[in-house]
Amino acid sequence: MLTSFVPVDMESDFPIQNLPYGVFSTKTNEHKRIGVAIGNFVLDLSVVANEGLFEGFDAACFNESSLNSFMAQGHHAWALARATIQKLLSADEPTIRDNEVLKAKALISSQNVIMHLPAKIGDYTDFYSSREHATNVGIMFRGKDNALQPNWLHLPVGYHGRASSVVVAGTDVRRPRGQLQADKADPSKGSIFAPSRILDFELEMAFFVGPSNELGDPISMDKAEEHIFGVVLMNDWSARDIQKWEYVPLGPFGSKNFATTISPWVVTLAALEPFRCEPSFGPVQQDPTPLPYITDPNYARGTYNIELHVAIQPENDPESYVITKSNFRNMYWTMKQQLVHHTITGCNMQPGDLLGSGTISGQTDDSLGSMLELSWQGSRDIPLGSSSKVRKFIQDGDRVTVTGFCQGDGYRIGFGPCDGKVLPAHQ
Amino acid sequence: MLTSFVPVDMESDFPIQNLPYGVFSTKTNEHKRIGVAIGNFVLDLSVVANEGLFEGFDAACFNESSLNSFMAQGHHAWALARATIQKLLSADEPTIRDNEVLKAKALISSQNVIMHLPAKIGDYTDFYSSREHATNVGIMFRGKDNALQPNWLHLPVGYHGRASSVVVAGTDVRRPRGQLQADKADPSKGSIFAPSRILDFELEMAFFVGPSNELGDPISMDKAEEHIFGVVLMNDWSARDIQKWEYVPLGPFGSKNFATTISPWVVTLAALEPFRCEPSFGPVQQDPTPLPYITDPNYARGTYNIELHVAIQPENDPESYVITKSNFRNMYWTMKQQLVHHTITGCNMQPGDLLGSGTISGQTDDSLGSMLELSWQGSRDIPLGSSSKVRKFIQDGDRVTVTGFCQGDGYRIGFGPCDGKVLPAHQ
Repeated sequence: MLTSFVPVDMESDFPIQNLPYGVFSTKTNEHKRIGVAIGNFVLDLSVVANEGLFEGFDAACFNESSLNSFMAQGHHAWALARATIQKLLSADEPTIRDNEVLKAKALISSQNVIMHLPAKIGDYTDFYSSREHATNVGIMFRGKDNALQPNWLHLPVGYHGRASSVVVAGTDVRRPRGQLQADKADPSKGSIFAPSRILDFELEMAFFVGPSNELGDPISMDKAEEHIFGVVLMNDWSARDIQKWEYVPLGPFGSKNFATTISPWVVTLAALEPFRCEPSFGPVQQDPTPLPYITDPNYARGTYNIELHVAIQPENDPESYVITKSNFRNMYWTMKQQLVHHTITGCNMQPGDLLGSGTISGQTDDSLGSMLELSWQGSRDIPLGSSSKVRKFIQDGDRVTVTGFCQGDGYRIGFGPCDGKVLPAHQ
Repeated sequence: MLTSFVPVDMESDFPIQNLPYGVFSTKTNEHKRIGVAIGNFVLDLSVVANEGLFEGFDAACFNESSLNSFMAQGHHAWALARATIQKLLSADEPTIRDNEVLKAKALISSQNVIMHLPAKIGDYTDFYSSREHATNVGIMFRGKDNALQPNWLHLPVGYHGRASSVVVAGTDVRRPRGQLQADKADPSKGSIFAPSRILDFELEMAFFVGPSNELGDPISMDKAEEHIFGVVLMNDWSARDIQKWEYVPLGPFGSKNFATTISPWVVTLAALEPFRCEPSFGPVQQDPTPLPYITDPNYARGTYNIELHVAIQPENDPESYVITKSNFRNMYWTMKQQLVHHTITGCNMQPGDLLGSGTISGQTDDSLGSMLELSWQGSRDIPLGSSSKVRKFIQDGDRVTVTGFCQGDGYRIGFGPCDGKVLPAHQ
């Protein structure tokens, strides 16, 4: 197994097999720049680039304050960068290992870095691609017989989200105020203005787009993967009461646009390659077969085996309690299918665009991706581990943390935490 | 009446009372920069700025390729810029008028300019704020008794649109392909893949946001106007058949994200000031009274008397036929109310964000803002003027042009055309 001269714990999210990209700064150098995570360190790629250690692509992009330029360069550049970084960090490579001056400059302790959004997100789209989640929400809103809308099995339903309020992990989130239906049962009674009373998370993943396509020219299935740079964890915070009142007929708006949290490290498809699903251990075939433009002959391998946890840490409680465990393979529509469908009418993608999976719910009660489902609309308590505490929805002061990893043989491909603490609403 | 030394026709969109901002380049100078339109000329503000003729704000922004920096500077800077430009262009001001070298450099014939998108649009939102349009669409989709959804009179319903596919007037638009419901009456029959058969325009206006607000901190009604930089015409192209199949439950997606056309010149609120509506000539009071956070004591004056026309020019036809005449005052929710509601849950606005009005339909059959309404779902022909041609929806080769103006006493505040020609779908 490939190992690094940088010490990496077996439980670390960031072994040499991972090498996720992020944007960071330090207290002593506030200039934002690109790094990769390795164990408890960050390799400053701007330093590596300035040493002239990259070849075959434009490495000046690592001096930039976002990954957009690197994303735009495409999969050949990504492969070259990864090969060089993996070589430079490997146990038997002396270039950095034995150069104390360079090593001190290039390797920065994770404790000393401040992480920023990995990209300037031009557009953010969120899908709704877990059959279990769509079914659960459908049952709650429309009853068992009409749970899935007629279009759901034919296309990856999605909507345009708000890009400006996508924030990096660690950013506090203010409980939103807005319009709530005055009478639960009778919408004709109008609305009141109040802080959201049923604030929720949504357990999601999201991917960043690499190279663009021209307006009017869709991306085809066989090229889709070349347009996917990498993946992050996401919490699509949702104010359920605001959502319920506002969402007809144009979809969620203020109930979602107050904050969406993503993890700071973008894990590339190259790092996830060993964790593609197989038909024997992944989603079943799609039935009905989708229209040809989104049919993937290697459907199962279009998704990945990524374990996902959500934990809640109440204010002043040292413990964080895992309340659900799901897996990215619980997606019915794959990233490739989402991307292709997104562009089929001609919509142009740009480097740094972010496409969310939708809430990832599994088939069991302990693998649901939102508190709406876990508490079944607030009808049952969600226990916080073995403590006596319970939740139905998020309380002020709660820190919600999404984590995820692929378990390899002796190593893990992790994402780092995707967390945020909820502040009380403004008075 | 204030006049300019630049000759301006009485029917011109761009008298000295207007002075809209745009981004342009020329064949001989491909550098994008900021200008204002005056008669048949563009005043190159980068030249004016480099001459040191602006004072009191950072005029270097006029050398930039988008208006975002100028938008960010706020209403004091906007007022200073406007006062200086109006003075420099006035009939009795010699600075440019009598300086042949400067005049030749600063004033460029409109025929020689190429217009670009006025701003880098971070996020684009579209509202649904004409009561007539919402009612008409509601009747078609749900019947007369449930035409307006229960929330409609309580909040400006809106959704996040696609920013990347907002294009400047003159850009060709490719007819989209996508999923259409296979059987009109029976969604359980699934979908087919085909070019959209019922392609439509939506007559809209949209405004650009100026200074930002912090995430978590809403904009209040009394500050809202300071965050509005100016207004453009907009055509929100819509594939009705794709929309019908896809929009449940999260709203329009591929049916809208293939293109949205805006006019290149941003008309400022200062230029529109004389055309505010009065209660005697504008929208009636809102009933029910909205919640306090979006109540405007000067409700009628929050909207503007702007005449709006849409014309269709078939391919190889020299004529362009006006098929509808509406007015911006037909909006139930004002720009200020849209902006405040957009931020109420804490959503952060950024300079250059674009907020669309929604389709602007009037109360009469000849003032409807879409072909869906004009042809009442294709059930009646829309005559093209006195020609024998008719339309129900847009045909390949049709050029759709939105125009708009405020009629002053001896002058017009216009927007320039917002046009686009439809190309046949890809094979």
